This record gives sequence, C-alpha cells and structure tokens, in this order.
Amino acid sequence: MQRIVIAALAAAGVGFSVSAAADEGMWTLNDLPTARMKQAYGFAPDPAWVDRVQKAAVRLAGGCSGSFVSADGLVMSNHHCANECLSRLSNDAHNYMTDGFVGKEEDEPKCPNIELNQLVSITNVTDKVDAALADKTGAARVAAQRAVDSSIEQACVAGDPDQWRCDVITLYHGGRYALYKYRRFQDVRMVFAPEQSIAFFGGDPDNFNFPRYDLDLTLLRAYVDGKPAHTPNYLPFDVNGPKAGEMTFVVGNPGSTQRETSWTALAYLRDEKVIPYQAYLSEERGVLWQFSRESARHAQAAQDDLFYGDNTLKVFKGWLATLTDESFIAKKKAEDTALRQWIAADPARVKQYGHPWRILDKAEAKGAEIQTRYDMLERGQAFGGDLFKYARTLVRAAAERDKPDAKRLPEYRSAHLPAVQQSVTSSGPIYPDYEQTRMAWALEKMRQALGADDPFVKNVLGDQSPDELAKRLVSGTKLADPAYRKKLWQGGERAIEQSDDPMIVFARQVDPAARTVRKTYEDDVEAPTDQAETAIAKARFARDGAKRYPDATFTLRLTYGRVKGWIEKGKKVAPFTHIDGLYARATGADPYKLPARWIQAKDKLDGNTPVNFVTDNDIIGGNSGSPVIDKAGHAVGLIFDGNIHSLGGNFTFNDANNRAVAVDTAFIETALRKVYDRNDLADELARGHRS
Amino acid sequence: MQRIVIAALAAAGVGFSVSAAADEGMWTLNDLPTARMKQAYGFAPDPAWVDRVQKAAVRLAGGCSGSFVSADGLVMSNHHCANECLSRLSNDAHNYMTDGFVGKEEDEPKCPNIELNQLVSITNVTDKVDAALADKTGAARVAAQRAVDSSIEQACVAGDPDQWRCDVITLYHGGRYALYKYRRFQDVRMVFAPEQSIAFFGGDPDNFNFPRYDLDLTLLRAYVDGKPAHTPNYLPFDVNGPKAGEMTFVVGNPGSTQRETSWTALAYLRDEKVIPYQAYLSEERGVLWQFSRESARHAQAAQDDLFYGDNTLKVFKGWLATLTDESFIAKKKAEDTALRQWIAADPARVKQYGHPWRILDKAEAKGAEIQTRYDMLERGQAFGGDLFKYARTLVRAAAERDKPDAKRLPEYRSAHLPAVQQSVTSSGPIYPDYEQTRMAWALEKMRQALGADDPFVKNVLGDQSPDELAKRLVSGTKLADPAYRKKLWQGGERAIEQSDDPMIVFARQVDPAARTVRKTYEDDVEAPTDQAETAIAKARFARDGAKRYPDATFTLRLTYGRVKGWIEKGKKVAPFTHIDGLYARATGADPYKLPARWIQAKDKLDGNTPVNFVTDNDIIGGNSGSPVIDKAGHAVGLIFDGNIHSLGGNFTFNDANNRAVAVDTAFIETALRKVYDRNDLADELARGHRS
Repeated sequence: MQRIVIAALAAAGVGFSVSAAADEGMWTLNDLPTARMKQAYGFAPDPAWVDRVQKAAVRLAGGCSGSFVSADGLVMSNHHCANECLSRLSNDAHNYMTDGFVGKEEDEPKCPNIELNQLVSITNVTDKVDAALADKTGAARVAAQRAVDSSIEQACVAGDPDQWRCDVITLYHGGRYALYKYRRFQDVRMVFAPEQSIAFFGGDPDNFNFPRYDLDLTLLRAYVDGKPAHTPNYLPFDVNGPKAGEMTFVVGNPGSTQRETSWTALAYLRDEKVIPYQAYLSEERGVLWQFSRESARHAQAAQDDLFYGDNTLKVFKGWLATLTDESFIAKKKAEDTALRQWIAADPARVKQYGHPWRILDKAEAKGAEIQTRYDMLERGQAFGGDLFKYARTLVRAAAERDKPDAKRLPEYRSAHLPAVQQSVTSSGPIYPDYEQTRMAWALEKMRQALGADDPFVKNVLGDQSPDELAKRLVSGTKLADPAYRKKLWQGGERAIEQSDDPMIVFARQVDPAARTVRKTYEDDVEAPTDQAETAIAKARFARDGAKRYPDATFTLRLTYGRVKGWIEKGKKVAPFTHIDGLYARATGADPYKLPARWIQAKDKLDGNTPVNFVTDNDIIGGNSGSPVIDKAGHAVGLIFDGNIHSLGGNFTFNDANNRAVAVDTAFIETALRKVYDRNDLADELARGHRS
Repeated sequence: MQRIVIAALAAAGVGFSVSAAADEGMWTLNDLPTARMKQAYGFAPDPAWVDRVQKAAVRLAGGCSGSFVSADGLVMSNHHCANECLSRLSNDAHNYMTDGFVGKEEDEPKCPNIELNQLVSITNVTDKVDAALADKTGAARVAAQRAVDSSIEQACVAGDPDQWRCDVITLYHGGRYALYKYRRFQDVRMVFAPEQSIAFFGGDPDNFNFPRYDLDLTLLRAYVDGKPAHTPNYLPFDVNGPKAGEMTFVVGNPGSTQRETSWTALAYLRDEKVIPYQAYLSEERGVLWQFSRESARHAQAAQDDLFYGDNTLKVFKGWLATLTDESFIAKKKAEDTALRQWIAADPARVKQYGHPWRILDKAEAKGAEIQTRYDMLERGQAFGGDLFKYARTLVRAAAERDKPDAKRLPEYRSAHLPAVQQSVTSSGPIYPDYEQTRMAWALEKMRQALGADDPFVKNVLGDQSPDELAKRLVSGTKLADPAYRKKLWQGGERAIEQSDDPMIVFARQVDPAARTVRKTYEDDVEAPTDQAETAIAKARFARDGAKRYPDATFTLRLTYGRVKGWIEKGKKVAPFTHIDGLYARATGADPYKLPARWIQAKDKLDGNTPVNFVTDNDIIGGNSGSPVIDKAGHAVGLIFDGNIHSLGGNFTFNDANNRAVAVDTAFIETALRKVYDRNDLADELARGHRS
C-alpha cells in the first residue's frame, strides 16, 4: 500500500455526510467516541491506555507509521516504509532491499534519511489562527497564515527544533486548527528487514488484494546520543495474534482523505490532478520498467521508485472508480446543495459564511489555467531525479534561511529545517545513468506539457535536446557526493551564488519561474480554496454540531473495529491466511518466488500459523506500519495494506467491504525464530527489552 | 495527427444538436448541402465535379485518406500514413522512415501492407437491414446483422473480392444503413517520401499545433497487373496553393466522431475506455521511449509504434478536456432529457421507440464488468507485438474460413479476406528483442489487470514470469518469416492444428477465452447498445427530420470551408506559414533538426513560399492525407493535422477555433524541384501524367 497520499493531491473543498458506517472513523486521540465504542463493543479504552498508546506510536516523517515494541527504542514498521533506507544502505556489494538485512552479526547501521516523531501533545489553536486570518483573502491570507503558523511553532519548539517538531494542523478543512508537538528522533538505525520477495510476496499483482501472504516487516531502533533510546511506553508484543471477531484498534497516521470534500473540489481533483498524473506516472513506470530490465544495477537503481509508482497507480485506479461512480457523484452533489440551501435560507448565515461555492468555482477556473505549469515547475515534474531535488533544496534553503521565519516558504521554517537538512545531506548511492534517464524523460515531458514555444521551455532547453541537457547536467555535477552537499548547505546563500556546479546553476536558473507560478497558485487558487473550505466547515458545524472525526491529515488517529472477513462477489473471504497457503501460492517465478531461507525452513514451520489477517478498522495510506492493538493494549498485528475496496475509502467508508490488511504477530515470531535465527529479536519482543 | 480513431473506442449511444456551426459537417457525397453552401459562399459543386472528386479520392484501408494526382495512378497522401510501409521496407542498410525515400534512380518498391479503396457507389440498404433486425435482441440480433451484412456484401462483390471491396456501413448510429462499394488496389508502391525530420518537423511537441512547418507528404503509385494504374479521374495539381479567405473543400475519410452520442454513452467512453487506455498507452510509451534510447536499431524497431502512441495520447488529452467540461456535459444531458421527454410525451412513441436509455444503462453496467477482460483478451492488450497478432490472425482465419460466410466473425467474411491475407503474409522486418519486450510487458499488464488468481492468467503463465514466457514464445516461433506465415495461411485449419510453433500453440491456447468474452461483449453490450442507438436515431429523425450529416464512419465525406486563421488567447493566428519561419524554428536539435538536404538548399529557396496553412474545414483523424480542393476541383493542399482545438471536434464542432492543417501545394512543388531534385515528379504533377 502507499506510504501516504501525495501532498499536492490533497483535495480542496469540504462536504458532509451525517450518517457514518459502524466502525468508520479516524479519531484524534483527544476526542475519542468512547460512548459509541462502548455501545458497539462493550469496551472503550481508558485515559491511561490512550496515553500509553499515544506515546508508543511513532510517525515516520517520510510517510508511514510505526510503534515502539520494546523499552530499548525498538520500532516495528513495514518493510516498504524502509525501502528508501534499504536502497540507500545498498551498494555494489549488497542489495539490502532485495536480499534483506537479516544477520545478527551485523551492526545496526544508521538509516540515512528516516526521522521518527513521537506525539507529545495536541493543543487547540483555532481561535488564534481564526483571528489572524479574519477577513483576509489571497496573498494577504497566505502571508497571515504563514506568520501565525510560524509564531505558534517557534514558541512550541522553544529554540530546540532538533529535539521538538511542531506543526500547526488544519483539521476539518479549516473548521479547527491544532498544534501537534512531537519529539523528534533523527538517529534511526536498521535492525532487521526480510528479503523483499517475502516482504512483498505477490508483488504488484497482490498489492491491495487479499488473501495475502506478506512479511511486510522492518525493525528499526531509535538512538539517542549514540545509544538505544529509552522508551518505557511501548506496546507489549503478543505472539498469539488476534482471534476472528476480536475487537482491534489501529493507531497511526492516515495521510489524507477527502470525505468532507465537496463535489466541486473532487471533480477538480479528478480532472486536473488525478487523470493527468495517472498518465504521467504510467509513462514513468514504463520508462523505469524497461530501464530495470537492462541490468541488475539498473534494477537496483529504480526499485524504490518503481514500487512507489506501482502503488500510486493502483491507488488512483481505486480513486477513479469512486470519482466516476454516478451514484457517488449524485450523493456528493446533493450534500453540497443541501448546505448551500441551508446557508441561503437565512440572510444572517449568508452574511456570516458568504458564497463559498462561488469562490471555489473561481479558484478552480484559475487553477485549471495553471495546474500543469505548477505541477511541472514547482512540483518538479519537469526535472526528475534526485540530483535536481538536492539542487533545488540547496538553492531554496539558502535563500529562505536569510529571511525572517514568518516570511519563509513554510517547508524552510526553522521548526522544519532539521528534517530538510537530514534529507539533503544524507548518504546513499546515486546512479548517474538512472539520473540522466529520469531527467531526460522529465524534460521531454515538460516540453510536451508546456509546448516548445513556451518562453520558459525555450530558456531551459535552448538548442539542446532533453537528453543532451540531462547528460550535461548529470555528468557535470558534484552533487552525488553528500560531503559536497553538506558544504553547500553550510555555505548558505553565498556558496550557492558562487557555485558553478551545473546542476546548482540550473536550479538557480529555473527557480524564479517556479516561485512565480507557486505564488500565483497559492494566492489565487489555494488561499481562496482554503477560505471557502473554512466557511463551509464552519457552516456545517453550525448546522450539525461537531460530532464527526476530521479528514485525515497525517497526524495520529485511532480507529476501532474487529477482525472480520467480507463477502466478495457472493463468496466469503476468510479473515486469516496461513503458512500452508503461502507455500501453495509460491510458483518459483517472480513475484511468487520465495527466498531460499523460506524454502529451506519449510519443514520447520507449522502450516497452521496465521500469516496475514483483515479487520474493518478504518485506515488509509500513511497508516502503513501501524500496530494492530487489542483491548489489553498489546500489539497483535502490523498494518501493511488495505484490500482493493479500501481505495475508495479516500472518499467514503464502506464497512461492508473496506478492510485493513495486517501481518499477524504469530507470523513475525515464527519468522524471526525459525527462518532468520533471530531469537535475540524475538526475545526482545517477548520481554520488552534487550537482554 | 492520427490516422483514425481506434475502432474499439468508437462510442456507443446517440445524441443530437439541431443547431450547427457555419462550416460544420462531414457530408456524404450523395447528400450534399448545396443550398447551404451556395448561401454561404455563392458556390456549390455540380454533379460532375462531385463525381470526379469521388473517383479521384482514395482511402488507405489502414486508416488514412489520399487522392489520385495523375492519370498514371500517382497518389498523394501523408508521410505519417506511409510510416508502416517505410518501416517495413527498411532494413539494416536503410532506414527509409528516418532518411526518406527520395532518389529517382530507385525502383518504386511495393509497400507490403497498403490497400487503396476507390469509392464506386453508395447504395441505401436501410430497409433491408431494418427488416432483418426487426424485434431481434442480443445474440439473435448479432447473428441477424451478420447474416444480412454478409448477404449484401456477397452480392456486391459478385465473386470477385480481389477487385471489389463492399462494406455495409451504419450511418446515424443505426438511423440509416448504406452499402459502400470500392475498387480495391493492393499493389501500391512507394514513390517518394521525405526525411521524417522534415515530414514531422517539430515532432510530438508541434503535433496538433500551429504555426507549423511540415512536409508531411508521401507519393505512392497504384499498380494494376504490374503497371501503373490508369486513373483518368485525378485532381489537377495547382502549384500556387490557396489564398487567404478562399473557399476550400476537403474530401476524405474521417474515422469516427461521437457528436450524436448521448451523454450516457460518452460517460462510458470516458470512464471505461479512454481513461484506462490512456494509462495503458502512457506506460507503453514509457517502455518504448526507453527501449528506443538503447540503440539505433531499437529506435528503428519502435519508431512506428511510438509515433502512434504519442499521437493517440494527444488525442485523448483533447478528448478528456471536452469530456470533463461541465458545460458540455450539461448540454449533452439536456439534449438526452429533451428527447426522452419527447418520446415519453406520447404513448405511441413509447410503443415505437421503447426505453432506449434503460437498455443503454443495462448494457453499460454489463460492459463495465467485462471491459477490461475484453480489452485484454480480445483487443489483445494482454499479448503485444506483431508475432502474436500474426498468430491470432492465422489461427482465427483458419477456423473462420471453414464456416459459412454469414456465420463468420465479420472481419473474416470472404469480402474482407483479401485485406487480411495481404496483412498477414506481408513482408517487413521483425525485431525479436522488441517483440519480446512488448510481449513481456503486455503479459505483465494482463496479470495486473485481471489479477494473479484469475484462472485464465494462471493457465497462461503457469509458473513462468511474463518475461520467461515471452522469451520462450518469441525465440521459438518461426512466424517472423512471411513465407512460413503464407504456408500456414494456405494450409488452413489442418496446418494450424498440426503446428507445434509455440506462438501458434499459444494463440490456440488463448483463443477460446478471447472468443468467449467477445461473444458476451457482442451479445450483451454491443447488441443492446446498437438497438438503443437505433431507436434513439429513429426517434430523432421523426422529431427533427434528417437534415444533419451522420457521424464519421471512415467513409468518404466532403466538407467545405475557407482558408482562415483564428484568435488564440486574444492574438490572431495567421493562416499561412512560410519557408523563412521554418529555418527560424530550426534549432539543430531533435525534433527541430532539419535534414542535411534542407540546410544545403536554403539559399535556393524563396523564404516567402507558403509551407502550411489552416482552414475551417470540419475534419477528424482518418482525414490525414485528404486533398484540399478549390472550386475548380484542383488540389491546392494536403491535410495532415488539425490544431489543438480540433481534438474536441470528436464531440462537438466549434468553428471559432477548430482548424484543419494542410501542406501547401506550393511547398510540395518547391521541395520536389529545389530540395530533392525530383523534377520528374513535379512535372508529372504539373501535367497530370508521366512523361
């Protein structure tokens, strides 16, 4: 499944559905529906349970979830959440992504680019933000939002952004604002990962499907001051897994949903974002697929991006099924109409909420004009590859760090800089031929999308073909070297201005046009959209009260449900799979080829051991790596996917068939002890601390 | 531009718009709006003009148009219509597609796979077909349609299908049926083609754009009995080209439009066909793009398919702009509603026309269930490459030829067999690594689309990966050899049954499942759709009279209009480009790199010579290669594209900005004489016959 929905696709607009399915809801931990839980299950967690679970949960800042599973900083998450780490640790001698990181004799090496966030507190800052934004529109609104967010965050990190991470989060699309304060861990090390062929057994064909047989597990460890972090709030690991029908909780960070979003905004999402990006990603997938077939080295270079692309394309397919469903569209339109009529029915309401849909329509008309340009120049679809990304970050960070915090682009505010710095200075292999291929292709897409006569395109390409330009930049740059990037980072604006590195020069060259389109997009598309959404959210609160959970925002949420199969085309799908089924499904050919260790271990394993299971917990991309927890507060599973019906969950939750897919803790225990000979880790899980 | 809209995407359903733009209309030659023309232009062609133009016009059966331009069988069409011929004539020594076929010392070699059709007569067969279909539904309707079509065609070809080609054409989506009888030319030879870099100057970035500078020309020659055909009805070639504002006619074969189609059916087209196929083709484009970069030989192998993919993707982008336009959708829905209400208003009408939209809804629900399977198995998206196509054609033709004509799959009826045979036995290079790549990729898409647990997928792949299977089939088959294919064709069912060629065995293996889904699709989706469309068309005739042209059907149509620019974002676009502009646009880098001949000839050319021009004639894909004709009936241009606004013309014609793009005859004359030293051809054009 996906780590998280791409931020730029987070939709605009707000809608509503007062009725909710039985186990629907991604609830913030400070506002749990305990009465509803008790009514349905005869149980609701008490404050101590919630507090401990909150502290045991971690967010992987790159787009996943996880949990502490020992007092010595051991973190359980998904293999696919550690793809980037495994790729970056790999080299000519080892492909850890393919072969796993399994031996206990090995040190726990540092993941170059993983940051963990542990939620410390949630503070309601609605009044403060509302006051700052009151009556502001367009550019003034953008500036006011930045200023108030910066001021709240600065106060929160209290001068120590390396220790604390603070984010002002928009909930209910502007109905509420909350400050999320996290403890930040940047020294995160690789402890264990199985081979990709068991972690992702069944590959893309089985992704988002069930029955399923994956050990999509990684174990990481948080370090502080060079030693394992002390994490007394962890989830005890129950090696028995859950039972069918048992109540389960999932705590994690669902990335983004658009359940409150109006049809107006969903149509824009579909037509201007998803459909064009589906075509872009599909073509990119084709390039990577063929590139990967050229050599093992090429396959290694492309493996992480290929996984991301496959995953996102499957998500989009699911989204489009919902976004072209006439009955869904009719329902959303009816909800929009009802709220419009409710506002229009009373002049006082009109005075208070205005005409949000008129504002949305205008914002979207402007958006449609510049979306392609924005995607190409600012989201970077025109450039491609890691080297350009490094260059842009270095160029922008240098310029932004010279500005007052409140005036910076938000991602470069001081509260966020540690993550940026970690990312841009982190080690990991760069494959020049891969970089050149990606960049040549992206530049060609740019010319195609904007047209050969576009002044920006002419300025960028001149008389060069995309391939020629890509070759010149990639072969000439020194940015593949992390030490060189670190020097440029430390050198700041002066170092950037003086640099004659061709990729830096190129990033400087394209930056003014990218910033220009971003500013127009923010001022004329996003600001009015936010303004309209806020008005809609507030009108809805006034009409219905605040009895719903907010749309997902990649912040900590708790969902409840139970272990439960579903009916697929008239047939029951059982909630558990077992080891016997894994071996029965293995064909010997990719992606159904088992690692040698698993073939050898077959006779040692109990065929009845559960492998994966499904629950009706309400999750979405970003929940990858979340623990499944029982009433006792013990880990009984590890979320790694949803079934195919879960994809529509981005827009609406259907508890008849939307299912979360998890690795059973019993399977993890068996794998560690009997396949990987890692009794040390199994013991740590069993006792809750290292020996 | 495209040769023709993909047949499988021809939409279902019928809609209506009584008002029409000034120069709108693709008129059948037996039903021209002469009064309207006279009113607007003070001129309408007389019957002799029409008769001569009809006979001078030719259809390239592969999806293009053309015209006789001398009495010795010389045919003018587009370079991009001869891509396949140029690719197939190419070999390790010559890449005719890239380098052109320009020397007069060369023989005129036979194009392996071009068939020309010259329209001889149009006969109204509506009563006969209506009688055969009366009250038939589902499978019975399919069988009845095949039987009546077969009987009409058999009578028409009168035992000589090599000489005559006869097609029963559905006009107005079932409102009318007509028999089109053509003279068939299968010996078509390559006379002249320029280098692709001038034929397609500006490449994909400039495709469907204007201003434009392309010599998208090919000259072919029809032969009969080994000698140039005698074609007294040809278009005299006017080397002066047209003037701005001059009245122009375009005669050619527009492939397919969906202007009469109801919104119900257009929504199905968008959601179930265009969006998924856009993703498929995008990914394929990525594979081909990277494959092409691997070597010059790879680029040669993929060039024709890459062109097709680029072109189709640009068309889809234009289609989606219209199909997601809320005002267009609202207009179509209103038209549907008006006709439904008109029927519902009178019980006699309900009795006569039934409830066509209910039938459509049901057919589409069934279609949505099986569309992917149909596309994969029957349209061949699951297999990929030319070798499989040959194998399927051989396997099917053998089985079908043993059946009575009326019971065959329509494409194997005896009236159509000569084209099938020409295609399957034609020569041309096969690139094994290209075939394997395409097939491996397609098999992977099949597994992805149908799921790894699908019994068909399991049966096809067994324990092999897509790459392994593709390698086994491609390396083992002898179908690359045209002589071997010819032997199998001649050997019929017995030869196919006995063959152990792995690709033939594979095509046999997958055929039952493909036929099954096709039959379901035909009986439960297409037949009720046709039935509903016919009812809608007849209701509309009854309400409005038959004063409109029928949607395009890849049959001969005439459009009228004038040489005319348009206003683009407030700026005038002039209708002509000139040689000076061509040189100014050349950068030296692909796709703006001029051939050496053009660089050398620069000083000899008059910079004011017109290159390309635009008119407001109403054309669409399939019109590629159509002549632009003046009032005198002389050729003054050669259609090769539409502007970007023409893409929406598939659904609605906007004469404010929809423009056809043509090569000026003056440019053709200059190129032949001054760049290619082909005075012999320029003279033949000037005099109307060879020396």
